[in-house]
Amino acid sequence: MTKAPVTRNDVAAYAGVSTAVVSYVVNEGPRRVSPETRERVLEAIRVLGYRPNATARALRMGTTRTFGLITPDGGNPLFAELAKAIDKEASAHGYVVLQTSTDGDPATEHAKIAELLTRQLSGLLLVAPTEDPDLTGVDVPVVAINRVLERATSVRSQYREGARQGVEHLIGHGHRRIGLVIGGGGRAERELGWRDALQEAGLDEGPIARTTFSRAGGYAAGRELLSATNRPTAVFASSDLQAIGVLRAVHEAGLRVPDDVAIVSFDGTAETEYTWPPLTVVRQPLEHLAQQAVDRLINPRPAVESLTCPTALTLRTSCGC
Amino acid sequence: MTKAPVTRNDVAAYAGVSTAVVSYVVNEGPRRVSPETRERVLEAIRVLGYRPNATARALRMGTTRTFGLITPDGGNPLFAELAKAIDKEASAHGYVVLQTSTDGDPATEHAKIAELLTRQLSGLLLVAPTEDPDLTGVDVPVVAINRVLERATSVRSQYREGARQGVEHLIGHGHRRIGLVIGGGGRAERELGWRDALQEAGLDEGPIARTTFSRAGGYAAGRELLSATNRPTAVFASSDLQAIGVLRAVHEAGLRVPDDVAIVSFDGTAETEYTWPPLTVVRQPLEHLAQQAVDRLINPRPAVESLTCPTALTLRTSCGC
Repeated sequence: MTKAPVTRNDVAAYAGVSTAVVSYVVNEGPRRVSPETRERVLEAIRVLGYRPNATARALRMGTTRTFGLITPDGGNPLFAELAKAIDKEASAHGYVVLQTSTDGDPATEHAKIAELLTRQLSGLLLVAPTEDPDLTGVDVPVVAINRVLERATSVRSQYREGARQGVEHLIGHGHRRIGLVIGGGGRAERELGWRDALQEAGLDEGPIARTTFSRAGGYAAGRELLSATNRPTAVFASSDLQAIGVLRAVHEAGLRVPDDVAIVSFDGTAETEYTWPPLTVVRQPLEHLAQQAVDRLINPRPAVESLTCPTALTLRTSCGC
Repeated sequence: MTKAPVTRNDVAAYAGVSTAVVSYVVNEGPRRVSPETRERVLEAIRVLGYRPNATARALRMGTTRTFGLITPDGGNPLFAELAKAIDKEASAHGYVVLQTSTDGDPATEHAKIAELLTRQLSGLLLVAPTEDPDLTGVDVPVVAINRVLERATSVRSQYREGARQGVEHLIGHGHRRIGLVIGGGGRAERELGWRDALQEAGLDEGPIARTTFSRAGGYAAGRELLSATNRPTAVFASSDLQAIGVLRAVHEAGLRVPDDVAIVSFDGTAETEYTWPPLTVVRQPLEHLAQQAVDRLINPRPAVESLTCPTALTLRTSCGC
């Protein structure tokens, strides 16, 4: 494992050219190299297994082809699946991703941004709402995902419209008292979407339980809704983790999903396909978010943009289908 | 967002020292700086928000304080939680992590290793069994996690002992026909542990279902075991995802967990606390694995080591407790 690395000298000797010519091939310039010579150098690189030093190259070329990605919690399935989609999209363009998380703490986020920036990133992705970070002095493209920043382009799921669609589906199943489980923080667009659907159908608002975006939070919210005097016959949960907590509360109460309480959830992570019963979900377009975000990092636009990507309803059985 | 970055010159001017002195402070050498001057420079760095260029520093100092992490699937909760633990441990030592995944494909892994290595990593972490990659020319420390490589230190969970403990627990509940769900690939240590426990108790082997390490694989395996002529009264699943698939198969068959079929699972990811019913799990020591692995990257030992970390049984209700 500690064989001496192959150097540019080795490649030059093997190909019978000067080290400068090797550099021109590796860096695609600054001087022209004839196609035959270029072929010979590439062959030498392949045979010897030469790896040009990206750090030295980054210094010369001013790019590391590396993105920083900061999420509140890399262990959260939504962020893990989003990070995977971003990694895939970045890889397809020859970039790699430095990923780290903050426990949702603004001070930690601030420190992590500074830490990542010392690595001469090609761009920075900031995921999910936290307090606005100080981006003073940040001299690389920044894209916010599912989050709005004053001075950075944002790429977001259509929260309000997606939530409306999920609640409308429950109304279509005949429900008239539809509760909401929602987390704090961020703009309450899923709450607005829930309200949009109820108003349009002329329904009163069902009970609201406000909690954290977690399984434990959903469980507490579920217990709260089930013991409410106006117990809902259906619940819209603003995240999968919360819906999974609600499921447990319903099971523990000896009630049935969807017969006694129907559930529709927002996110559409893999876990929801195998809950009992499987959850009907409003799916966030993670691949689409990743594509847009990576494109805006690689090809920054002059203006700050706000992009939204449509969600999609995936029908399973928790809604009554 | 495009304010000119603070330079070493700015720091030198603010502190009233030469730029060379700023370098000595930032790089902790090569020449001594008096404590008072050092204090003044650090104060200037703080006030101005100076970020030394890590790429340039890496070139001088030969380290990027960056680890590469390659897993088969960043969206798999086990790998997401492990990556989070590694990121936490790395952060505590001033390192950041470049994370990418391979879809379990050896050729992709090979390409990703090469890609990451051009970034002058300080070390490389390879997670979970795939074919042995070619590590020729890899000149940084490599640590394998839950995987054995011929020429790299490995840090692993005690699979065999952990599985034995999980199956013994089911035997303790009075079960005499205990099936196994296991994935292909890797060394079948969980299978050996299951067998150890059965032999020690003088029990015949229950049926085995071999499948992928996935929810869908577990579901298929669960259906297979439930339709076996010697239907088991308990199942040991060699991963959480498989156990979650088995749960669905049991529910769909109209059977009860744990009354008709008890389940114990291996991994202990967060998802298992909120399945219905909550899964009793043999928990992998992810934090411990991360600590050991990061330590071996930062302080490489002269010999190739093989470290194992003990698992822990977490009792919930799927086992009958």
